[in-house]
Amino acid sequence: MAKINQNYLQLQGSYLFSEIAKRRTKFIQDNPQAAIISLGIGDVTRPLPEAVIRSLHDAVDEMADAQSFRGYGPEQGYDFLIEEIIKHDYAAHGIQLSNNEVFVSDGSKCDVGNIQEIFSLDSIIAVQDPVYPVYVDSNVMAGRSGDYNKTSNRYENIVYLPCNAENNFKPELPTQKVDLIYLCYPNNPTGMTLTKDELKVWVDYAREHNCILLFDSAYEAYIQEKDVPHSIYEIEGAKEVAIEFRSLSKTAGFTGTRCAYVVVPRELKARDEEGNEVTVNDLWNRRQTTKFNGVSYITQKGAAAIFSDAGKLQIATLVDYYMTNAAIIREGISSLGIEVYGGVNAPYIWLKTPNGMGSWEFFDKLLSEANIVGTPGVGFGQNGQGYFRLTAFGSRENTEKAVDRFKKLSL
Amino acid sequence: MAKINQNYLQLQGSYLFSEIAKRRTKFIQDNPQAAIISLGIGDVTRPLPEAVIRSLHDAVDEMADAQSFRGYGPEQGYDFLIEEIIKHDYAAHGIQLSNNEVFVSDGSKCDVGNIQEIFSLDSIIAVQDPVYPVYVDSNVMAGRSGDYNKTSNRYENIVYLPCNAENNFKPELPTQKVDLIYLCYPNNPTGMTLTKDELKVWVDYAREHNCILLFDSAYEAYIQEKDVPHSIYEIEGAKEVAIEFRSLSKTAGFTGTRCAYVVVPRELKARDEEGNEVTVNDLWNRRQTTKFNGVSYITQKGAAAIFSDAGKLQIATLVDYYMTNAAIIREGISSLGIEVYGGVNAPYIWLKTPNGMGSWEFFDKLLSEANIVGTPGVGFGQNGQGYFRLTAFGSRENTEKAVDRFKKLSL
Repeated sequence: MAKINQNYLQLQGSYLFSEIAKRRTKFIQDNPQAAIISLGIGDVTRPLPEAVIRSLHDAVDEMADAQSFRGYGPEQGYDFLIEEIIKHDYAAHGIQLSNNEVFVSDGSKCDVGNIQEIFSLDSIIAVQDPVYPVYVDSNVMAGRSGDYNKTSNRYENIVYLPCNAENNFKPELPTQKVDLIYLCYPNNPTGMTLTKDELKVWVDYAREHNCILLFDSAYEAYIQEKDVPHSIYEIEGAKEVAIEFRSLSKTAGFTGTRCAYVVVPRELKARDEEGNEVTVNDLWNRRQTTKFNGVSYITQKGAAAIFSDAGKLQIATLVDYYMTNAAIIREGISSLGIEVYGGVNAPYIWLKTPNGMGSWEFFDKLLSEANIVGTPGVGFGQNGQGYFRLTAFGSRENTEKAVDRFKKLSL
Repeated sequence: MAKINQNYLQLQGSYLFSEIAKRRTKFIQDNPQAAIISLGIGDVTRPLPEAVIRSLHDAVDEMADAQSFRGYGPEQGYDFLIEEIIKHDYAAHGIQLSNNEVFVSDGSKCDVGNIQEIFSLDSIIAVQDPVYPVYVDSNVMAGRSGDYNKTSNRYENIVYLPCNAENNFKPELPTQKVDLIYLCYPNNPTGMTLTKDELKVWVDYAREHNCILLFDSAYEAYIQEKDVPHSIYEIEGAKEVAIEFRSLSKTAGFTGTRCAYVVVPRELKARDEEGNEVTVNDLWNRRQTTKFNGVSYITQKGAAAIFSDAGKLQIATLVDYYMTNAAIIREGISSLGIEVYGGVNAPYIWLKTPNGMGSWEFFDKLLSEANIVGTPGVGFGQNGQGYFRLTAFGSRENTEKAVDRFKKLSL
């Protein structure tokens, strides 16, 4: 009989959000009358911006006519979209990129899951803890994790960088040799950010220690404060050490429409077994052209519309809407004496569970007493134990209702 | 410095179609007046069916309204699409499937490239030769290929199953132990098919020898002859040994719209290192939920429309159009005394190059003398040397023009 990839058996439980969905479904079966409010999975609820809708319709019409019909596009994405990305997301911040440094994809989850493929299997990876599970799980699947230790809730070959209230959710630099460091800012799940100076420390460290930063900035659009960098390439020298992941999911409500991109600067090098330098961009290009066939033309046309004047205004309104929700949650919950983090430059609110409750215990309490679904912090790693994530992506009405229900909890 | 995945350095040259694009671009630069006809890459040219267009517009409108807006969908695809697939593509052929056995994706290239991840790195893979390059390259990247031998144009650990005029492009069964066998029918690039009895030989072999068949039937919609199976699951016992890949790319003109699916029957088992049986469906589900975030809702709504009465009629018309092209190419070229294969149950015509010319030599001749771009057979493997692929996906006008130009070649 054919043999499986044994590494899959190292994966722990089911994927976090599947487990949440399971408990939620069971609760609804047992309590069919309950009006559940979901502030759990980070999924948007507002409709697509009008400019995007218009552009999608136009693109669909193009596909109806042999003259304007599009078949296979470039695996890397259409230049019409890449050029808008470079102009508005980079050149506007003083960062120069070439078209061949940007790779459009169908989602950051795919990109951050696939990126590890182009690196050596014996690479040591470091992650923040708590962490978006895909960074860890994709490396477990590839065989980089080593065994899982049930007591520590950790894999033995992965280097965890604790983020907690004591260090204001800003991890210390690794004390052992690592090759790839996943950083996520604005952070999922804590909602916290780094200033330019703080991010510079990481870039300098990577340059000095010859490691690569995998910088996930899916929540960049939510940055409100001035000193928070929008791109890692605002830091000098970052192009030589960093890959940046961006997504339209939260920026423009594309969670169900699917468009993201990765920047892999030509300056970024790694080495082969003989010690020769290899341009990482070439490897990613080869990976994408071999195993991916580009994003739907219609979707890319929709995505390009967010960079129009109307589109920019509309996505700013979208972000404002969710950030007002974030403020409502922050203020409402902290007024109860609960410690609250995030929600200032990110759509996530990270709270310390009251009375030292465990994360899943608080999940079940919140679901049964307030009919609110949130995300248990421990689902993001051991340092998330005793924390809980709420998202600002609900409707205004549900967000306000949720805060009212929170206030009636027996704490 | 971080280390790369060394296996990437084993990859040969650039991906076939990139090389074709490069030569084509150079020719156009040198001959800006030439009116090139492309019968090279298997890309469709007819617009999307009207039913699909209508459904796409409706779905875009749903995304414009908070009440009907869709965020993240199931990673495996929406049930509304999966149920149509099962009903029309399987139940109609007497095959029963459950919803959790069908995984909707953004393309067969991704699926056939990713499927190897869930199997052991020491799996021995077998491919037909000539072969769609992604099967080989994705395994090279993973480290299953061993070294490349320049003389034989083959990787030492891959088992090649020659398909040539002598065996009517139907490979012999492997004579050594293999674990995973990639089969593609209707075949890309040869355009040839197997009868039910011939496919049964492979299913029986896989059952007896404990291997798994990775059955790519992206061109299923083009089957015209009665005795050619539409799904491998028409063969008794196939659910225990086969994964089937299907795509809407060629069925409904979705090359630029991106939708495909994989069937992984629950009956299909592999084993872990201790010899325990593992349900392969669970592994693929875990892979997809961890590294993929589902296909755009809009795209899935468009895809579902091909199963409506109007949609079915429209895609039948689409297939007829291309198959008429195939007949024009077949007849036109064979009238010149050139040996021609395929084009009966598939949109590909596979021809023996005249006068024993090499595949790339013929490519250059065809490009320079007739301004036609085709695909060199050797690009699909050593057994493709001396063969050449033409596609039926051009417009009628271009197809007829191409055949006329063919007739004027100095052969």
